[in-house]
Amino acid sequence: MNNPYAPHPPLPAALIEELAQRFVDRFSISQAVRDQHGRDESVHPAAAPDAVVFVETTKEVAEVVRLCSQHRMPVIPYGAGSSVEGHFLAICGGVCIDLSRMNRIVAIHAEDLDATVQPGVTRKQLNAELHGTGLFFPIDPGADASIGGMAATRASGTNAVRYGTMRENVLGMTVVLADGRIIRTGGRVKKSSAGYDLTRLFIGSEGTLGIITELTVRLYPLPEAISSAVCTFPGVDAAVDTVIQTIQLGIPVARIELLDALTISAVNRYSKTSLTEAPTLFFEFHGSPSAVEEQATLVQEIAVGHGGMDFEWATRPEDRSRLWQARHDAYFACLQLKPGSRAFPTDVCVPISRLAECIRATNEDIARSAIPIPLFGHVGDGNFHLVVLIDPDSSQEVAEAEQINHAVVTRALAMEGTCTGEHGVGIGKQQFLVAEHGEAAVDVMRALKRALDPDNLLNPGKILP
Amino acid sequence: MNNPYAPHPPLPAALIEELAQRFVDRFSISQAVRDQHGRDESVHPAAAPDAVVFVETTKEVAEVVRLCSQHRMPVIPYGAGSSVEGHFLAICGGVCIDLSRMNRIVAIHAEDLDATVQPGVTRKQLNAELHGTGLFFPIDPGADASIGGMAATRASGTNAVRYGTMRENVLGMTVVLADGRIIRTGGRVKKSSAGYDLTRLFIGSEGTLGIITELTVRLYPLPEAISSAVCTFPGVDAAVDTVIQTIQLGIPVARIELLDALTISAVNRYSKTSLTEAPTLFFEFHGSPSAVEEQATLVQEIAVGHGGMDFEWATRPEDRSRLWQARHDAYFACLQLKPGSRAFPTDVCVPISRLAECIRATNEDIARSAIPIPLFGHVGDGNFHLVVLIDPDSSQEVAEAEQINHAVVTRALAMEGTCTGEHGVGIGKQQFLVAEHGEAAVDVMRALKRALDPDNLLNPGKILP
Repeated sequence: MNNPYAPHPPLPAALIEELAQRFVDRFSISQAVRDQHGRDESVHPAAAPDAVVFVETTKEVAEVVRLCSQHRMPVIPYGAGSSVEGHFLAICGGVCIDLSRMNRIVAIHAEDLDATVQPGVTRKQLNAELHGTGLFFPIDPGADASIGGMAATRASGTNAVRYGTMRENVLGMTVVLADGRIIRTGGRVKKSSAGYDLTRLFIGSEGTLGIITELTVRLYPLPEAISSAVCTFPGVDAAVDTVIQTIQLGIPVARIELLDALTISAVNRYSKTSLTEAPTLFFEFHGSPSAVEEQATLVQEIAVGHGGMDFEWATRPEDRSRLWQARHDAYFACLQLKPGSRAFPTDVCVPISRLAECIRATNEDIARSAIPIPLFGHVGDGNFHLVVLIDPDSSQEVAEAEQINHAVVTRALAMEGTCTGEHGVGIGKQQFLVAEHGEAAVDVMRALKRALDPDNLLNPGKILP
Repeated sequence: MNNPYAPHPPLPAALIEELAQRFVDRFSISQAVRDQHGRDESVHPAAAPDAVVFVETTKEVAEVVRLCSQHRMPVIPYGAGSSVEGHFLAICGGVCIDLSRMNRIVAIHAEDLDATVQPGVTRKQLNAELHGTGLFFPIDPGADASIGGMAATRASGTNAVRYGTMRENVLGMTVVLADGRIIRTGGRVKKSSAGYDLTRLFIGSEGTLGIITELTVRLYPLPEAISSAVCTFPGVDAAVDTVIQTIQLGIPVARIELLDALTISAVNRYSKTSLTEAPTLFFEFHGSPSAVEEQATLVQEIAVGHGGMDFEWATRPEDRSRLWQARHDAYFACLQLKPGSRAFPTDVCVPISRLAECIRATNEDIARSAIPIPLFGHVGDGNFHLVVLIDPDSSQEVAEAEQINHAVVTRALAMEGTCTGEHGVGIGKQQFLVAEHGEAAVDVMRALKRALDPDNLLNPGKILP
């Protein structure tokens, strides 16, 4: 596998020897292992690291970082490999720190509604472990991502409208700094005014300021009752207006997801569902049985008022699971719409008052393109995705996808939105950072990077343009 | 007024002249104005700035900062003056930037549930302005603090258990940097993964990294129904156990406040209430009428199960207002327990599983002291305050208060707590920062400070030991 990015010096033989001696069979420079750690779910060209270390403790991470720092070699953290923005592509070479073996649940504090986990624990693993405690961890990006990676990209998912994103749900972390020092940020308290918010500084920093090696996350009591519903609409506008009114009335909906007709058709084929192929909202309500019923009735009234049809309820756990599994598989379902295609996902988020307008204009972009482009998203937060299904070998289709992404981001920014609601900047969104934040704010980000990683060794080439 | 802190050079005559010329009657070096800006609600010795500028725009803040920066003179932002930790005391001299005239509500976006305000807007002013919109801003520290100051100290209050703190409720800000550059952080979207979280970096930075000159905050729909209740308990333990069980069951209580018997007695005298003088919980429930009733019934059952008595309901708005006004006045009520006294407040926060144990041990400290020490707090978050009522002229009482604070903080830290849940570090909590976060994490904070304020001109001497 060639590295199509900037050329970079090879790993010094001394460093290879030191790492090999220290980590023995947990250190690899085999092409297969490197290749596996050099490609993600994105359309960005693969870029293999020069070596991979499978670490098992915070101290080991610190050792690797310190050794690499002595040789001025980049280090790149790797979690579950589910990035869609090239986060861990080794575009400047260097050593990949694979954290997937750090997958131990350190402690579950049921009384305090928190759990401390290693970064390689995945969201599904944590929830499986919580089975029987009456608690759950709500954040659910599409993939079974690692919790460390989710923190590093400030991930969210379908529940964020009710439970927040990783920003709101990490209480504290252990982080290895660029020089190998180990710090603890935050803690286990629900709130604190004790100094700078280092936890939030590392959340969303995508491995460029430090490597997260332990996290304490919030848990929530499993709702006594859960009810899901599916409702189709005559058009996307009607669906979005339903969302806006639901949010504005303060109905504490747990999930409210939009899938356009093309996405539904992909879902039907992939997940063997028989949903009406029209713009559709998936809802979920959490609470006491009566609260859930009340919320659901209210939302149904709002939906019907906007032309919502075929309101179908899923209250049995297996029906709900099937519904949300289908939703989580939407991304993979879409890929099947065009065999051999790769997904070029967009990820804008706008203030909800602009959402209908933003989606309407985006649908015109979609209509003008010959590429199949399903649209779905977490519309309760104003966040939606296009999945532009391109032939990766067609430079014309790649260019067209880039053009569409550019148009969608530019439109979202003009509406006071963001270029990425939950995927992160990685490589793909760097070009929009100044447009979104302004040159001075990006300069502040650069100053923070220099302060914490003066030699630019932590995941270089990511986030900052 | 003398400055009892480190001696510092006077303002250069040239700087005084430049500021006087630029700001005319909005610039003052009068002793009365300086003194007024040099004392807060804390027991820390007053320290007047050398001059005060009453700014009206972000651009003016930038001008003052730039002029001061050219002369290497400190600048200290000033909001409503309600700090209890010496945040704006000019301990190194310098120019105070009084932001209280920047008190304009820039925009209310009812559809998006947010408002953009200048930093001098107070929480009560914003809520008065929201009257009739069906929305409210929940964060309520005891004083009618400025929203800029609340962001700078990461403040919270009685509603944080349901609505979060300033950390969760600021979407974006305008900030003037140490060199006078103006940046925008965050924005108006509910979530974003676009780069480092500058918003959260400035929240809680207490004017040491930049000066906040505009904020976009979250608003919430006014609950359809609100119900408050008061319940007394045979002991603090029983009250705290009620809190713990309520939180663990996931009951979305909007407020859950503990007041000990001494606080209740102070409240009765100050607010002319006739509450039973025993450990007491104040509750509030927000939601639909039936949800509120359901939550209230559940919590009442839990309370009764722990020996709760005299459950009294306040559902009429005027009764509720009276109850919560009494709660907000508790601090001032306590001061009246010992005429002429000053309050030395503590502010620890612990994981809720340790709360009963922490309060129990703290009550032993209280029992050992001859000083009256009411205890109350936001126990749903694990946060409580002692108000140590000292004679400020008695060095023995000051020393005893410091000793009690030290004991309480040390105990909280041993329980994975924080030295300050909501007041901020200011001057008073600096001594605990390393114990709480570790030397390496505090070093990271110092590196951030150096990166953004290399000449240490922004509110010097605060937060970092």
